[in-house]
Parts: sequence; C-alpha cells; structure tokens
Amino acid sequence: MYQDLKERVLNANLKLPEYGLVTLTWGNVSEIDRKQGVVAIKPSGVEYDAMTVNDIVLVDLDGYIIDGKLNPSSDTATHLELYKSFPQLGGIVHTHSHNATVWAQAESDIPALGTTHADYFYGDIPCTRLLSPTEISTEYEKNTGLVIIEEFQRRDIDPIAVPSVIVAGHGPFSWGKSGLDAVHNAVVLEEVASMAIATRSINNGVHIKKELSDKHYLRKHGVNAYYGQR
Amino acid sequence: MYQDLKERVLNANLKLPEYGLVTLTWGNVSEIDRKQGVVAIKPSGVEYDAMTVNDIVLVDLDGYIIDGKLNPSSDTATHLELYKSFPQLGGIVHTHSHNATVWAQAESDIPALGTTHADYFYGDIPCTRLLSPTEISTEYEKNTGLVIIEEFQRRDIDPIAVPSVIVAGHGPFSWGKSGLDAVHNAVVLEEVASMAIATRSINNGVHIKKELSDKHYLRKHGVNAYYGQR
Amino acid sequence: MYQDLKERVLNANLKLPEYGLVTLTWGNVSEIDRKQGVVAIKPSGVEYDAMTVNDIVLVDLDGYIIDGKLNPSSDTATHLELYKSFPQLGGIVHTHSHNATVWAQAESDIPALGTTHADYFYGDIPCTRLLSPTEISTEYEKNTGLVIIEEFQRRDIDPIAVPSVIVAGHGPFSWGKSGLDAVHNAVVLEEVASMAIATRSINNGVHIKKELSDKHYLRKHGVNAYYGQR
Amino acid sequence: MYQDLKERVLNANLKLPEYGLVTLTWGNVSEIDRKQGVVAIKPSGVEYDAMTVNDIVLVDLDGYIIDGKLNPSSDTATHLELYKSFPQLGGIVHTHSHNATVWAQAESDIPALGTTHADYFYGDIPCTRLLSPTEISTEYEKNTGLVIIEEFQRRDIDPIAVPSVIVAGHGPFSWGKSGLDAVHNAVVLEEVASMAIATRSINNGVHIKKELSDKHYLRKHGVNAYYGQR
Repeated sequence: MYQDLKERVLNANLKLPEYGLVTLTWGNVSEIDRKQGVVAIKPSGVEYDAMTVNDIVLVDLDGYIIDGKLNPSSDTATHLELYKSFPQLGGIVHTHSHNATVWAQAESDIPALGTTHADYFYGDIPCTRLLSPTEISTEYEKNTGLVIIEEFQRRDIDPIAVPSVIVAGHGPFSWGKSGLDAVHNAVVLEEVASMAIATRSINNGVHIKKELSDKHYLRKHGVNAYYGQR
Repeated sequence: MYQDLKERVLNANLKLPEYGLVTLTWGNVSEIDRKQGVVAIKPSGVEYDAMTVNDIVLVDLDGYIIDGKLNPSSDTATHLELYKSFPQLGGIVHTHSHNATVWAQAESDIPALGTTHADYFYGDIPCTRLLSPTEISTEYEKNTGLVIIEEFQRRDIDPIAVPSVIVAGHGPFSWGKSGLDAVHNAVVLEEVASMAIATRSINNGVHIKKELSDKHYLRKHGVNAYYGQR
Repeated sequence: MYQDLKERVLNANLKLPEYGLVTLTWGNVSEIDRKQGVVAIKPSGVEYDAMTVNDIVLVDLDGYIIDGKLNPSSDTATHLELYKSFPQLGGIVHTHSHNATVWAQAESDIPALGTTHADYFYGDIPCTRLLSPTEISTEYEKNTGLVIIEEFQRRDIDPIAVPSVIVAGHGPFSWGKSGLDAVHNAVVLEEVASMAIATRSINNGVHIKKELSDKHYLRKHGVNAYYGQR
Repeated sequence: MYQDLKERVLNANLKLPEYGLVTLTWGNVSEIDRKQGVVAIKPSGVEYDAMTVNDIVLVDLDGYIIDGKLNPSSDTATHLELYKSFPQLGGIVHTHSHNATVWAQAESDIPALGTTHADYFYGDIPCTRLLSPTEISTEYEKNTGLVIIEEFQRRDIDPIAVPSVIVAGHGPFSWGKSGLDAVHNAVVLEEVASMAIATRSINNGVHIKKELSDKHYLRKHGVNAYYGQR
C-alpha cells in the first residue's frame, strides 16, 4: 500500500545528489496522492546513501504520521501548506542548492534574463518577504509555507507558470506534477540562478523582453505548444 | 540509407552531455549531406540517455521530414537558414551552455581577450541584435537564423573564421565541417566565454592586440599553418 | 593499541579528497583520545592515495611522538593548542579549501547570510588577526593555535557553537566531536563560504536576522531540537 | 634508448587532463636529459586519449628532431629557450588552464595573497610584457621564451623560487625538477590563480605580508625546512 508512491519519492530524493543539488543530508522531496490525501516525504537528517523505501514517511495533510518509523523532514509543514493552497501541485522539493540559495540570501527575486529561464518560468522567480520574529518563533515551518502563498497571491502569480520560489534568507522550493517533475524544475532553477548571477556581473541592467519570454514559455507550455513530442 | 549520417549526428549529440554543455534535454546537433540536400538532426525534447540512432530525424532544406517518427528539434528552422546562407557549414550545434548563454543574456559580444580565443575565433564572437516583436511572433526560429546571417553580413564576418554566434537574450550556435567539429567549437566557445567573464572582472578594459590574434589564428588555420600534424 | 583511533583518523583524512576539500597533499585531520591524552594525526606531505593506517602518527599533548615512523603534520602544534584550550573538541581538521581560504586571504569574517550557515554556525565565522613577525618567526604553528584561541576568547564565542575559524592570510580550521564530525563541519564551512562570496557580489549589505539564525541553529542544536532522528 | 624519458613525459602529459588543466588537446609537457642535451616533448595537436609513448618527440636544444614521426608541440621553441637560460629546470609545462589564463588575459601578475601561494611561490607570479609586433611576426615561440627570461632577469627572480610565469595575453608556463614536478606546480598555480580572483573580488587591496610569505616558503623549501618527510 502506497508502495509505488514511496518508491517514486525515494527515487526523486536520490536524484538530488545525482544532480548536485544537495550537500550532506540537505534537501527533501515529497509527492502527494490527492485522492487519499496522503503525502510521502523524506525522513529528517538521513544520509542519501543509506536511504531505503521503508525510510520514506507517510503523513496526512494535517501532518499526522500514517506510516514510517522515522521523523519526517523538519520542512514537512511547509510542504503541507503548499499542497493545501496550490491544488495543482503533485510534488514539492526543497534544497539549499548553491545559486538559488545565493539569491535567497541576497533577498532578491531571480530576474528572468533569457530564454533558458523563459522555457520553464513565466517571469521573475519571486523572493518572499522575511518572516516576522513572531512567525519565526511559532510554527516557523508552517509560516514559511504561508509566506510563500502570500507572495504568489499578492503578485497574482500562477504557481504552475512559475514552479519555484525562494524564501528570503533561507533557500528555494520548487514543485511540479510529481516529485520527479519538481526535481527537474529545481535543476533548471539552479542553472538559471547561476547564469543570472554571472549575467548581472557583466550587464547589471539587462532583462528579457516580454515578447521573447512569452514566445519561449508558450511554445513549450501554451495551448499551441510545439516543443517536444506530443 | 543515411545510416552513417544519422550515426554521426547521434554521436555528436551524445558528446554534449559528455562535455558538460547541456542540462537535461537542452541542445541539439545537426549535420548536412550537401550532395543530397538532407539534414540529420536531434529529435525535440528527448533524453540523451535514451536516444538511439533511429530517433534522429532527417529533413530536407525546406524542413520537410524525410525520415523519422519523432518531431525534429524545435530549432530546426534556424539550422536550415544557416545551412542555406553559409554553404561552407557541414554541421551546426545549439546549446544553452552556461557561460556562452551568460554573454547572450548580457546582450554583449564575447570579446577576444587571449590566444585561447584567437586559436579558434578570428576576432570577437558577435552577439546578434534582439528580434523584433514581429520576428518573434511569426516564424521565430527561422528569423533567429536570419538575424544571425544579418549580423555576419553587416559586420562582414566569414563564418568559417568565427564559427560561433550568440543570439541576444537566448544562447549560442556553433558550427564546423561536421557535427562533431561544431561540437568542438562549442566546447571552445564555452571555455573562452567563461574566461572572458573572469578576465573582465579583474581588468575591464583589456583586449587582445590584433598582431597576437592574427598570429595564433593563422599559425593554426592560415595557408602556412604549422600547428598540429599535417 | 590505538588501532581504532588510527583507523578513524585515516578514514577522516581520506574524506578530504572525496569531498573536494584538498589539492595534492594539503590538509590534515586529527582525533584525540581524551582519557589517554593521545592524538592521532596525518603524517606531513604524504599522498592520500598511498596513505595507510600505519602512516598515522600518534603524539601526546606536548607533541612527543608516541608511535609512527613518519613526521606528523607540520600543523600538529596548532591542533594541540586547540585540544588543550577547548576541552570539548574530539577532532580537528585543517584544509586550504578553496572558498574558506579566499575569506582568509581577504582577512575577513565569513558573514552569516542565511539558514544554511545558521544550521551549523551560531553567528559569523571569525577571522583571526594577523600574527606578528615575532609570532611568525618563533613557534609559528603553536602561535597559530594561540591566536585562534585569543579570537574566540576576545569575542566570547563558544567553539562548539561556531566549530570553525579562518586564520588571516592562511586558511580554515574546523572541529567537532570526532575527526569525521570535524570534516563534516569543514564541508559546510566551504559551502557557506562559497555562497557568501556570491551573495555579497549581488547584495553587499545583506546579513541574516538574529531571530532566523537563532531558530535554525536551535531547532538543530538547542535543548528542544527537533531536526533529524533522536 | 630514452625510453624512460619518453614514458615519463607521456605520463606527465596524461596528468594534465586528469588534473583538469586542459581542454581538448591544449597543453604540453617536456622533460630534459641534461647529460645528453635531449628534450622529450608532446606532439602537436594530438588527443590525450590516443597518445602513446611512441608519439613523444625527441629534439635537441636547437630544435632538431632526433626521434619521432610526429611534429613536436608548436611551443617547443619556448621550452628550449627556457632550458637553455635556466639550467636548473628539469621539466616544463604549458597549459591554458582556466584561472591562470584569466590573469594572463588581464595582463596582470598573480598577487601572493596567502600561505597556499607562499608554500610554492616566493612572491608574486610575474606576468610578462606583451610581445612587440616584430617579436610576434618572426620566431614567435622563441621570442615567447625570451620575454619570459627577460622578465625574470629584469626583476631578479630565481626561477626555482617562482616556478611559474604567465605570458601576457596568452597563458601560463610552469617548471620543476621533472615533467611531473612541473605539472604539480601547474596544479598549484591554477588553484592560487583561482583563489586570487575571488579574494580580490571581496577585498581588492589585500596582499600577504612578507614575514608570513617567508615563513611558509622557507619551512618547505629553505635550508632548515621541516615540512614533509626527509
């Protein structure tokens, strides 16, 4: 039961070191079974080398453990808030991937500077506001989710069109149709974050033009998309 | 029939991840059989790990599919314009390789700053102008080719002497005698792009002198070249 | 006798090239047996590929060799001073890891800029003052230890809460409960050092807020810690 | 005959891709048999994967080929000038390694900024002047050697104490007791070049103090050296 879900989540987690997105045990991927309201997520602080499918923890949307002997990721409450507010999400990943975290530490949006960005993200990748001392001291991980949701609502961003966010002072979250799809978006996020740092070091004022951004996003994700195999 | 061409194109495409020039499925290599007017090119959005020789698509110079079950790369029309206007080209590669893309995003030529550059590129590597909204909305990929050709003609650059270009806001194209030769030029482009970013961070005004650039280019590619084995 | 200690020290040393923290033979790890007052440490200038458990040198806290045919690391005296003044330390590592050394060369603290840093280090990572000409000319390695201790005492920093230091003009030392734990802290030091360089290149004035730093450090290391498995 | 010399030179050349110092076929190592006046050197433009001991070319100090079917490296004349003027040299390596080449392109010395540098190089690593148009057009590779020698003589630098140079607009040469020792110095050069770029981006005015530089150089290379095994 939920064996497939747990295996998919294990495999998506193992992609994090493979893609160079994590150091030591950092980072976690979850995936949701929407019908059953069950979320499978990485256990907290476990080494990737030693992780097996039985280490994956199942929780419900209130965070109660349904199955698993280990503590779920300490970021579980953030994942759950995102699943509850963004019903389109099938999988979520949190990392401290190098360049995305640099932008989070700089407390700055990742600007859309080229078609690599536009192929996956429809506009700048938002950086949240800093959490207040009260939001930090009580239910910090839940409030991290709420501040992400607030940012998307305030700016009227569709989380499917911009499948990543950076939390100020902290790091990135990405999402997608599944855990693996979320990881793919985290790979792209890291690459565009890296290219944006270098681009701004050469030409600080540059930004992609809206027509070019629209073209690349829509040829891949629009109703008349013609990129890839269909 | 065309089995050799397809195998060469497959192998040249597989060099892209090997040389670290691509993330996920990005990038594509083509090669042309000039006698038959047939171009072999990577299919769109297919994983490198799973690609086989039968996935390679054959098209004619008008873009009609001659052979293959998959859609050709969405950038095929760009390749075809370049083959039609630059009859010396045998192979073309498009990537979003990190540092060359940074210069494209910065909307700046890659300046010739040393002999590493001069060994392969006779002068700065040009950055095209941005496409107009009309050029983007209609036949975008074909117009990408046309704007490259316009840039080489406007500056009177021989595409054999400067076998790469960066498209503003987008990324690089490289070419050569074959698909594999184009990939080699893409490797060098990426390296000189990377060194140019760091060089300008130390000494912003520097540029290679014409005599030194000439010497290195011509000892390798001139009529009296003496580099390598002959 | 001390065979386990020597094997642990060998294995911790071999982690240095595995984690990309050393070039050639640079870097050294030690671990102490507090009951016996015995320190096991890497020999000086030996290649990692060729190192065996019998090459590990045992010294007492005065630096006298108890066991081993090779010279101990030239940095042994620094390790010994730290063990004597900081009784909580079980293992120490010195490297010239790239980004931490960059901050040492810049003669600057590594500022705490995000939660990645705060998860492991409670505040900025201090940079020592430069040693005086006299401190350099006489008992240089011992004085390197003393200047580290002086810095922690002057700023009233608990070496367990900030398990790394950078020595001005030289490079980093990290420590922990064991040699392997020290190496883990050196891995994190290198990553936060790298992210701090890039962060400051985008937003020079930024710094993590105290509430967020406290939260992350304490959820992992405080009395009510809930990160990981317990 | 000279089989040992050729094998040592082959192995030293194969270390270049292993240490990440070369792209494609760039770079070359030579070693000299001082008694016989014979230099073994890499052939020009040959792939490292395919290189065998029989491809290594033997030349005398006037550049005449003694043994070998392939053309020697196009940089052979530079190596020969260095061997003739610096009788202490046993091996020489030329690369276009990334960060050392960046400093060459910036036409700037690599400043000594820390003990990593001081452990191997006694002071700044000099950048030559640019060659004149006449020096470029006639016997360019020989003149590259002469301009290096001029720089060491002008500044009164002992080539054993500073076993590397960067040629303005071009790239680095390193040397040592053997080809392999030269490669080791090229590895260190690349690392200190890289750290110097990042250090100067944080603290532009910094430089290592002479006392600290002396201490590290002399504890490793001085008459009373105590680093390593003796």
